[in-house]
Amino acid sequence: MQEETALPKGARHRVERARARARYDRAAVHSILDAGMLAHVAFCIRGQPFAIPMLYARDGDDLVLHGSVASRLTGQLASGIDACVAVTHMDALVLARSHFDHSINYRSVVAFGRATLVADEAEKAAALAHLVDALVPGRAAEARPADRSELAATHVLRFAIEDASAKVRSGGVNDGEADRALPHWAGVVPLRTHYDEPLPEPGIAASLPLPPSVRSLLARNEDAR
Amino acid sequence: MQEETALPKGARHRVERARARARYDRAAVHSILDAGMLAHVAFCIRGQPFAIPMLYARDGDDLVLHGSVASRLTGQLASGIDACVAVTHMDALVLARSHFDHSINYRSVVAFGRATLVADEAEKAAALAHLVDALVPGRAAEARPADRSELAATHVLRFAIEDASAKVRSGGVNDGEADRALPHWAGVVPLRTHYDEPLPEPGIAASLPLPPSVRSLLARNEDAR
Repeated sequence: MQEETALPKGARHRVERARARARYDRAAVHSILDAGMLAHVAFCIRGQPFAIPMLYARDGDDLVLHGSVASRLTGQLASGIDACVAVTHMDALVLARSHFDHSINYRSVVAFGRATLVADEAEKAAALAHLVDALVPGRAAEARPADRSELAATHVLRFAIEDASAKVRSGGVNDGEADRALPHWAGVVPLRTHYDEPLPEPGIAASLPLPPSVRSLLARNEDAR
Repeated sequence: MQEETALPKGARHRVERARARARYDRAAVHSILDAGMLAHVAFCIRGQPFAIPMLYARDGDDLVLHGSVASRLTGQLASGIDACVAVTHMDALVLARSHFDHSINYRSVVAFGRATLVADEAEKAAALAHLVDALVPGRAAEARPADRSELAATHVLRFAIEDASAKVRSGGVNDGEADRALPHWAGVVPLRTHYDEPLPEPGIAASLPLPPSVRSLLARNEDAR
Protein backbone atom coordinates (compact mmCIF):
# COMPACT_ATOMS: atom_id res chain seq x y z
CA MET A 1 0.00 0.00 0.00
CA GLN A 2 1.06 3.56 -0.63
CA GLU A 3 2.37 5.97 1.93
CA GLU A 4 -0.50 8.41 1.49
CA THR A 5 -3.13 8.71 4.16
CA ALA A 6 -5.89 7.71 1.78
CA LEU A 7 -6.37 4.02 1.16
CA PRO A 8 -6.31 2.97 -2.50
CA LYS A 9 -9.65 3.52 -4.14
CA GLY A 10 -10.98 0.84 -6.44
CA ALA A 11 -14.67 0.36 -7.07
CA ARG A 12 -15.51 -2.64 -4.92
CA HIS A 13 -15.15 -0.87 -1.59
CA ARG A 14 -16.95 2.39 -2.47
CA VAL A 15 -19.84 2.90 -0.10
CA GLU A 16 -23.04 3.35 -2.09
CA ARG A 17 -25.58 3.95 0.64
CA ALA A 18 -25.51 6.57 3.38
CA ARG A 19 -22.33 8.01 1.90
CA ALA A 20 -22.12 10.61 4.65
CA ARG A 21 -21.20 7.73 6.96
CA ALA A 22 -18.29 6.57 4.79
CA ARG A 23 -14.59 7.11 5.50
CA TYR A 24 -11.64 6.04 3.42
CA ASP A 25 -8.70 7.41 5.36
CA ARG A 26 -6.14 5.05 6.79
CA ALA A 27 -6.43 6.39 10.35
CA ALA A 28 -10.17 5.76 10.52
CA VAL A 29 -9.80 2.25 9.09
CA HIS A 30 -6.91 1.38 11.42
CA SER A 31 -8.55 2.66 14.59
CA ILE A 32 -11.66 0.54 13.94
CA LEU A 33 -9.56 -2.53 13.19
CA ASP A 34 -7.44 -1.96 16.31
CA ALA A 35 -10.54 -1.83 18.51
CA GLY A 36 -11.47 -5.41 17.62
CA MET A 37 -10.16 -8.95 17.52
CA LEU A 38 -12.87 -10.87 15.65
CA ALA A 39 -13.46 -10.50 11.90
CA HIS A 40 -15.72 -12.21 9.43
CA VAL A 41 -13.73 -13.36 6.42
CA ALA A 42 -15.57 -13.91 3.13
CA PHE A 43 -14.34 -15.77 0.07
CA CYS A 44 -15.84 -17.63 -2.88
CA ILE A 45 -15.29 -21.23 -3.90
CA ARG A 46 -16.80 -21.94 -7.32
CA GLY A 47 -19.32 -19.16 -6.83
CA GLN A 48 -20.32 -20.29 -3.34
CA PRO A 49 -19.76 -17.55 -0.77
CA PHE A 50 -18.43 -18.35 2.70
CA ALA A 51 -18.27 -16.04 5.72
CA ILE A 52 -16.19 -17.41 8.57
CA PRO A 53 -15.38 -15.82 11.95
CA MET A 54 -11.64 -15.52 12.58
CA LEU A 55 -9.45 -13.81 15.15
CA TYR A 56 -7.18 -11.17 13.66
CA ALA A 57 -4.55 -8.61 14.55
CA ARG A 58 -3.56 -5.59 12.48
CA ASP A 59 0.11 -5.26 11.58
CA GLY A 60 0.71 -2.12 9.53
CA ASP A 61 -1.51 -2.40 6.48
CA ASP A 62 -1.86 -6.16 6.88
CA LEU A 63 -4.12 -8.31 8.98
CA VAL A 64 -2.62 -11.38 10.60
CA LEU A 65 -4.89 -14.44 10.61
CA HIS A 66 -4.20 -18.00 11.65
CA GLY A 67 -5.54 -21.51 11.73
CA SER A 68 -4.52 -25.12 11.88
CA VAL A 69 -2.44 -26.46 8.99
CA ALA A 70 -5.25 -29.03 8.65
CA SER A 71 -7.80 -26.25 8.11
CA ARG A 72 -9.64 -26.18 4.81
CA LEU A 73 -10.29 -22.50 5.46
CA THR A 74 -6.71 -21.29 5.82
CA GLY A 75 -5.68 -23.55 2.93
CA GLN A 76 -8.25 -21.90 0.67
CA LEU A 77 -7.34 -18.41 1.79
CA ALA A 78 -3.65 -19.11 1.28
CA SER A 79 -4.26 -20.19 -2.32
CA GLY A 80 -4.35 -16.53 -3.33
CA ILE A 81 -8.09 -16.09 -3.87
CA ASP A 82 -9.75 -12.75 -3.31
CA ALA A 83 -11.02 -12.27 0.21
CA CYS A 84 -13.05 -9.68 2.06
CA VAL A 85 -12.62 -9.04 5.77
CA ALA A 86 -15.33 -7.24 7.74
CA VAL A 87 -15.09 -5.93 11.30
CA THR A 88 -18.06 -4.28 13.02
CA HIS A 89 -18.45 -2.72 16.47
CA MET A 90 -21.93 -1.99 17.78
CA ASP A 91 -21.89 1.17 19.89
CA ALA A 92 -25.53 1.89 20.65
CA LEU A 93 -29.15 1.05 19.96
CA VAL A 94 -30.96 3.95 18.33
CA LEU A 95 -34.61 3.83 19.34
CA ALA A 96 -36.81 6.14 17.31
CA ARG A 97 -40.48 7.04 17.58
CA SER A 98 -41.06 5.20 14.27
CA HIS A 99 -40.05 1.66 13.35
CA PHE A 100 -38.51 3.03 10.18
CA ASP A 101 -35.98 5.24 11.96
CA HIS A 102 -34.72 2.59 14.38
CA SER A 103 -31.03 1.99 13.83
CA ILE A 104 -27.75 1.25 15.54
CA ASN A 105 -24.65 3.31 16.07
CA TYR A 106 -21.69 1.35 14.80
CA ARG A 107 -18.19 1.47 13.38
CA SER A 108 -17.37 -0.97 10.61
CA VAL A 109 -14.57 -1.70 8.18
CA VAL A 110 -14.83 -3.73 5.00
CA ALA A 111 -11.39 -4.55 3.57
CA PHE A 112 -10.51 -6.29 0.30
CA GLY A 113 -7.31 -8.12 -0.52
CA ARG A 114 -5.58 -11.46 -0.60
CA ALA A 115 -3.80 -13.58 1.96
CA THR A 116 -0.44 -15.27 1.73
CA LEU A 117 1.11 -17.90 4.00
CA VAL A 118 3.89 -16.81 6.30
CA ALA A 119 6.72 -19.35 6.07
CA ASP A 120 9.43 -17.80 8.22
CA GLU A 121 9.44 -19.26 11.73
CA ALA A 122 10.38 -16.08 13.56
CA GLU A 123 7.74 -14.14 11.68
CA LYS A 124 5.13 -16.78 12.49
CA ALA A 125 6.01 -16.66 16.19
CA ALA A 126 5.80 -12.87 16.17
CA ALA A 127 2.42 -13.03 14.44
CA LEU A 128 1.04 -15.41 17.07
CA ALA A 129 2.30 -13.11 19.83
CA HIS A 130 0.59 -10.24 18.04
CA LEU A 131 -2.68 -12.20 17.94
CA VAL A 132 -2.42 -12.85 21.69
CA ASP A 133 -1.90 -9.14 22.30
CA ALA A 134 -4.97 -8.39 20.15
CA LEU A 135 -7.03 -10.46 22.60
CA VAL A 136 -5.56 -8.71 25.64
CA PRO A 137 -2.91 -6.00 25.21
CA GLY A 138 0.28 -6.98 27.01
CA ARG A 139 -0.70 -10.62 27.40
CA ALA A 140 1.95 -12.08 25.04
CA ALA A 141 4.74 -11.11 27.45
CA GLU A 142 3.03 -13.11 30.21
CA ALA A 143 2.86 -16.46 28.42
CA ARG A 144 5.14 -18.93 26.68
CA PRO A 145 5.82 -18.19 22.98
CA ALA A 146 5.03 -20.89 20.43
CA ASP A 147 7.64 -23.61 20.00
CA ARG A 148 8.73 -25.20 16.74
CA SER A 149 6.16 -27.98 16.75
CA GLU A 150 3.34 -25.53 17.51
CA LEU A 151 4.53 -23.26 14.70
CA ALA A 152 4.67 -26.25 12.36
CA ALA A 153 1.04 -27.04 13.23
CA THR A 154 -0.13 -23.49 12.54
CA HIS A 155 -0.91 -21.66 9.33
CA VAL A 156 -0.19 -17.97 9.74
CA LEU A 157 -1.68 -15.79 7.03
CA ARG A 158 -0.88 -12.23 6.13
CA PHE A 159 -3.90 -10.54 4.53
CA ALA A 160 -2.70 -7.47 2.62
CA ILE A 161 -5.39 -4.79 2.54
CA GLU A 162 -5.66 -3.56 -1.04
CA ASP A 163 -8.62 -1.28 -0.45
CA ALA A 164 -10.89 -0.64 2.46
CA SER A 165 -13.66 1.59 3.65
CA ALA A 166 -14.94 2.49 7.07
CA LYS A 167 -18.53 3.33 7.87
CA VAL A 168 -19.61 5.02 11.07
CA ARG A 169 -22.99 5.99 12.46
CA SER A 170 -23.04 7.99 15.68
CA GLY A 171 -25.32 10.49 17.37
CA GLY A 172 -29.01 10.51 18.05
CA VAL A 173 -32.37 9.63 16.55
CA ASN A 174 -33.40 10.87 13.10
CA ASP A 175 -37.17 10.94 13.58
CA GLY A 176 -39.01 13.16 11.14
CA GLU A 177 -40.61 16.40 12.29
CA ALA A 178 -44.16 14.99 12.37
CA ASP A 179 -43.06 12.01 14.50
CA ARG A 180 -41.58 14.22 17.20
CA ALA A 181 -45.08 15.00 18.43
CA LEU A 182 -45.82 11.31 19.04
CA PRO A 183 -46.08 10.25 22.69
CA HIS A 184 -43.32 7.64 22.32
CA TRP A 185 -40.01 7.64 24.19
CA ALA A 186 -37.00 7.97 21.87
CA GLY A 187 -33.32 7.88 22.60
CA VAL A 188 -30.03 6.07 22.39
CA VAL A 189 -28.89 3.16 24.56
CA PRO A 190 -25.07 2.90 24.49
CA LEU A 191 -23.56 -0.60 24.49
CA ARG A 192 -20.13 -1.72 25.58
CA THR A 193 -18.23 -4.88 26.35
CA HIS A 194 -18.06 -5.62 30.05
CA TYR A 195 -15.36 -7.92 31.43
CA ASP A 196 -16.63 -10.12 34.23
CA GLU A 197 -14.61 -11.49 37.13
CA PRO A 198 -11.75 -13.65 35.74
CA LEU A 199 -12.01 -17.37 36.45
CA PRO A 200 -8.51 -18.79 37.17
CA GLU A 201 -7.84 -22.33 35.93
CA PRO A 202 -7.85 -25.11 38.49
CA GLY A 203 -4.25 -25.41 39.65
CA ILE A 204 -3.53 -21.69 39.58
CA ALA A 205 -2.32 -20.87 43.08
CA ALA A 206 -4.53 -18.46 44.97
CA SER A 207 -1.35 -16.53 45.74
CA LEU A 208 -0.73 -15.89 42.03
CA PRO A 209 -2.04 -12.36 41.42
CA LEU A 210 -3.96 -11.39 38.29
CA PRO A 211 -1.40 -10.39 35.66
CA PRO A 212 -1.10 -6.72 34.59
CA SER A 213 -2.76 -7.39 31.22
CA VAL A 214 -5.91 -8.71 32.86
CA ARG A 215 -5.95 -5.96 35.47
CA SER A 216 -5.78 -3.35 32.69
CA LEU A 217 -8.65 -5.07 30.93
CA LEU A 218 -10.82 -4.95 34.05
CA ALA A 219 -9.94 -1.30 34.55
CA ARG A 220 -11.75 -0.58 31.28
CA ASN A 221 -15.02 -1.43 33.02
CA GLU A 222 -14.40 1.41 35.44
CA ASP A 223 -13.08 3.84 32.82
CA ALA A 224 -16.27 3.40 30.83
CA ARG A 225 -18.53 4.36 33.73
CA MET B 1 -36.86 -26.67 5.30
CA GLN B 2 -37.97 -29.97 6.69
CA GLU B 3 -39.82 -30.53 9.91
CA GLU B 4 -37.05 -32.63 11.45
CA THR B 5 -34.85 -31.21 14.14
CA ALA B 6 -31.73 -31.64 12.06
CA LEU B 7 -30.97 -28.94 9.54
CA PRO B 8 -30.42 -30.17 5.96
CA LYS B 9 -26.89 -31.41 5.46
CA GLY B 10 -25.07 -30.50 2.29
CA ALA B 11 -21.32 -30.25 2.09
CA ARG B 12 -20.69 -26.50 2.24
CA HIS B 13 -21.65 -26.08 5.89
CA ARG B 14 -19.89 -29.17 7.32
CA VAL B 15 -17.43 -28.08 9.97
CA GLU B 16 -14.00 -29.45 9.12
CA ARG B 17 -11.94 -28.23 12.03
CA ALA B 18 -12.57 -28.80 15.75
CA ARG B 19 -15.54 -30.99 14.88
CA ALA B 20 -16.30 -31.56 18.55
CA ARG B 21 -17.42 -27.92 18.62
CA ALA B 22 -19.90 -28.36 15.77
CA ARG B 23 -23.69 -28.58 16.07
CA TYR B 24 -26.22 -29.04 13.30
CA ASP B 25 -29.49 -29.20 15.20
CA ARG B 26 -32.11 -26.57 14.63
CA ALA B 27 -32.45 -25.62 18.30
CA ALA B 28 -28.74 -24.82 18.65
CA VAL B 29 -28.72 -22.79 15.44
CA HIS B 30 -31.88 -20.89 16.36
CA SER B 31 -30.81 -20.04 19.90
CA ILE B 32 -27.54 -18.52 18.65
CA LEU B 33 -29.35 -16.54 15.95
CA ASP B 34 -31.95 -15.32 18.46
CA ALA B 35 -29.24 -14.03 20.79
CA GLY B 36 -28.02 -11.55 18.16
CA MET B 37 -29.12 -8.78 15.86
CA LEU B 38 -26.05 -8.15 13.67
CA ALA B 39 -24.92 -10.57 10.96
CA HIS B 40 -22.22 -10.47 8.33
CA VAL B 41 -23.66 -11.37 4.95
CA ALA B 42 -21.33 -12.72 2.27
CA PHE B 43 -21.98 -13.01 -1.47
CA CYS B 44 -19.95 -13.11 -4.67
CA ILE B 45 -20.16 -10.77 -7.64
CA ARG B 46 -18.11 -12.07 -10.59
CA GLY B 47 -15.83 -13.95 -8.19
CA GLN B 48 -15.33 -10.98 -5.88
CA PRO B 49 -16.41 -11.77 -2.32
CA PHE B 50 -18.21 -9.19 -0.19
CA ALA B 51 -18.94 -9.35 3.54
CA ILE B 52 -21.37 -6.69 4.73
CA PRO B 53 -22.76 -6.10 8.24
CA MET B 54 -26.57 -6.17 8.33
CA LEU B 55 -29.20 -6.20 11.05
CA TYR B 56 -31.36 -9.33 11.01
CA ALA B 57 -34.23 -11.02 12.79
CA ARG B 58 -35.02 -14.73 12.70
CA ASP B 59 -38.52 -15.70 11.60
CA GLY B 60 -38.95 -19.47 11.66
CA ASP B 61 -36.28 -20.89 9.38
CA ASP B 62 -35.81 -17.57 7.61
CA LEU B 63 -33.80 -14.49 8.43
CA VAL B 64 -35.37 -11.13 7.74
CA LEU B 65 -32.99 -8.51 6.33
CA HIS B 66 -33.66 -5.04 5.02
CA GLY B 67 -32.19 -2.04 3.29
CA SER B 68 -33.03 0.94 1.16
CA VAL B 69 -34.58 0.28 -2.24
CA ALA B 70 -31.63 2.32 -3.56
CA SER B 71 -29.17 -0.14 -2.02
CA ARG B 72 -26.83 -2.01 -4.35
CA LEU B 73 -26.48 -4.61 -1.59
CA THR B 74 -30.12 -5.58 -1.17
CA GLY B 75 -30.58 -5.43 -4.94
CA GLN B 76 -27.78 -7.94 -5.43
CA LEU B 77 -29.02 -10.19 -2.66
CA ALA B 78 -32.56 -10.10 -4.05
CA SER B 79 -31.34 -11.24 -7.47
CA GLY B 80 -31.28 -14.81 -6.17
CA ILE B 81 -27.53 -15.30 -5.79
CA ASP B 82 -26.13 -17.64 -3.15
CA ALA B 83 -25.44 -15.94 0.15
CA CYS B 84 -23.84 -16.91 3.44
CA VAL B 85 -24.87 -15.33 6.73
CA ALA B 86 -22.58 -15.54 9.77
CA VAL B 87 -23.43 -14.57 13.35
CA THR B 88 -20.85 -14.79 16.13
CA HIS B 89 -21.08 -14.06 19.84
CA MET B 90 -17.88 -13.74 21.86
CA ASP B 91 -18.40 -15.11 25.36
CA ALA B 92 -14.95 -15.09 26.95
CA LEU B 93 -11.24 -14.63 26.47
CA VAL B 94 -9.35 -17.85 27.10
CA LEU B 95 -5.89 -16.99 28.41
CA ALA B 96 -3.52 -19.92 28.43
CA ARG B 97 0.01 -20.34 29.72
CA SER B 98 1.17 -20.68 26.11
CA HIS B 99 0.50 -18.35 23.17
CA PHE B 100 -0.60 -21.39 21.16
CA ASP B 101 -3.48 -22.29 23.49
CA HIS B 102 -4.96 -18.81 23.72
CA SER B 103 -8.49 -18.81 22.37
CA ILE B 104 -11.95 -17.39 22.81
CA ASN B 105 -15.19 -18.91 23.95
CA TYR B 106 -17.82 -18.19 21.34
CA ARG B 107 -21.06 -19.28 19.74
CA SER B 108 -21.33 -18.92 15.97
CA VAL B 109 -23.68 -19.85 13.17
CA VAL B 110 -22.84 -20.00 9.49
CA ALA B 111 -25.96 -20.33 7.35
CA PHE B 112 -26.25 -20.81 3.59
CA GLY B 113 -29.19 -19.94 1.38
CA ARG B 114 -30.74 -17.33 -0.87
CA ALA B 115 -32.78 -14.23 -0.30
CA THR B 116 -35.97 -13.13 -1.97
CA LEU B 117 -37.72 -9.76 -1.90
CA VAL B 118 -40.88 -9.47 0.15
CA ALA B 119 -43.51 -7.66 -1.93
CA ASP B 120 -46.59 -7.83 0.28
CA GLU B 121 -47.07 -4.61 2.27
CA ALA B 122 -48.43 -6.21 5.41
CA GLU B 123 -45.62 -8.76 5.42
CA LYS B 124 -43.05 -6.00 4.96
CA ALA B 125 -44.50 -4.02 7.86
CA ALA B 126 -44.47 -7.12 10.06
CA ALA B 127 -40.86 -7.81 9.10
CA LEU B 128 -39.79 -4.29 10.06
CA ALA B 129 -41.57 -4.66 13.40
CA HIS B 130 -39.74 -7.95 13.87
CA LEU B 131 -36.40 -6.24 13.17
CA VAL B 132 -37.20 -3.57 15.77
CA ASP B 133 -37.99 -6.28 18.32
CA ALA B 134 -34.67 -7.98 17.50
CA LEU B 135 -32.91 -4.78 18.60
CA VAL B 136 -34.92 -4.55 21.82
CA PRO B 137 -37.61 -7.14 22.61
CA GLY B 138 -40.99 -5.45 22.99
CA ARG B 139 -39.91 -2.21 21.38
CA ALA B 140 -42.08 -2.49 18.24
CA ALA B 141 -45.25 -2.05 20.31
CA GLU B 142 -43.89 1.26 21.64
CA ALA B 143 -43.28 2.99 18.31
CA ARG B 144 -45.15 3.91 15.14
CA PRO B 145 -45.29 1.14 12.49
CA ALA B 146 -43.99 1.91 9.01
CA ASP B 147 -46.37 3.76 6.71
CA ARG B 148 -46.84 3.14 2.99
CA SER B 149 -44.17 5.55 1.81
CA GLU B 150 -41.63 4.11 4.26
CA LEU B 151 -42.49 0.60 3.11
CA ALA B 152 -42.11 1.69 -0.51
CA ALA B 153 -38.63 3.01 0.30
CA THR B 154 -37.54 -0.23 1.97
CA HIS B 155 -36.38 -3.53 0.55
CA VAL B 156 -37.32 -6.34 2.89
CA LEU B 157 -35.53 -9.62 2.19
CA ARG B 158 -36.36 -13.08 3.38
CA PHE B 159 -33.22 -15.23 3.53
CA ALA B 160 -34.27 -18.89 3.57
CA ILE B 161 -31.73 -21.00 5.45
CA GLU B 162 -30.97 -24.04 3.31
CA ASP B 163 -28.25 -25.42 5.55
CA ALA B 164 -26.48 -24.17 8.61
CA SER B 165 -24.03 -25.18 11.28
CA ALA B 166 -23.36 -23.90 14.74
CA LYS B 167 -19.97 -23.95 16.43
CA VAL B 168 -19.47 -23.44 20.14
CA ARG B 169 -16.41 -23.26 22.32
CA SER B 170 -16.95 -23.05 26.07
CA GLY B 171 -15.09 -24.01 29.21
CA GLY B 172 -11.54 -23.46 30.33
CA VAL B 173 -7.96 -23.44 29.14
CA ASN B 174 -6.48 -26.38 27.21
CA ASP B 175 -2.84 -25.98 28.23
CA GLY B 176 -0.75 -29.11 27.81
CA GLU B 177 0.49 -31.02 30.83
CA ALA B 178 4.04 -29.63 30.65
CA ASP B 179 2.77 -26.06 30.49
CA ARG B 180 0.79 -26.38 33.70
CA ALA B 181 4.02 -26.13 35.68
CA LEU B 182 4.83 -22.74 34.18
CA PRO B 183 4.58 -19.77 36.56
CA HIS B 184 2.04 -17.98 34.34
CA TRP B 185 -1.50 -17.06 35.32
CA ALA B 186 -4.13 -18.80 33.19
CA GLY B 187 -7.87 -18.50 33.15
CA VAL B 188 -10.99 -17.29 31.44
CA VAL B 189 -12.32 -13.73 31.35
CA PRO B 190 -16.06 -13.74 30.55
CA LEU B 191 -17.38 -10.95 28.32
CA ARG B 192 -20.87 -9.59 28.01
CA THR B 193 -22.71 -6.65 26.53
CA HIS B 194 -23.43 -3.94 29.05
CA TYR B 195 -26.19 -1.39 28.44
CA ASP B 196 -25.26 2.08 29.62
CA GLU B 197 -27.65 4.76 30.86
CA PRO B 198 -30.13 5.60 28.07
CA LEU B 199 -29.81 9.06 26.55
CA PRO B 200 -33.27 10.46 25.77
CA GLU B 201 -33.58 12.61 22.66
CA PRO B 202 -33.84 16.36 23.12
CA GLY B 203 -37.54 17.10 23.32
CA ILE B 204 -38.42 13.97 25.28
CA ALA B 205 -40.22 15.24 28.38
CA ALA B 206 -38.46 14.45 31.63
CA SER B 207 -41.81 13.15 32.85
CA LEU B 208 -41.88 10.46 30.14
CA PRO B 209 -40.66 7.31 31.86
CA LEU B 210 -38.32 4.82 30.21
CA PRO B 211 -40.50 2.36 28.26
CA PRO B 212 -40.81 -1.25 29.46
CA SER B 213 -38.62 -2.56 26.62
CA VAL B 214 -35.69 -0.39 27.67
CA ARG B 215 -36.20 -1.15 31.35
CA SER B 216 -36.07 -4.88 30.58
CA LEU B 217 -32.87 -4.35 28.63
CA LEU B 218 -31.22 -2.55 31.54
CA ALA B 219 -32.34 -5.30 33.89
CA ARG B 220 -30.09 -7.67 31.96
CA ASN B 221 -27.08 -5.81 33.38
CA GLU B 222 -28.22 -6.78 36.86
CA ASP B 223 -29.24 -10.34 35.92
CA ALA B 224 -25.76 -10.96 34.57
CA ARG B 225 -24.04 -10.00 37.82
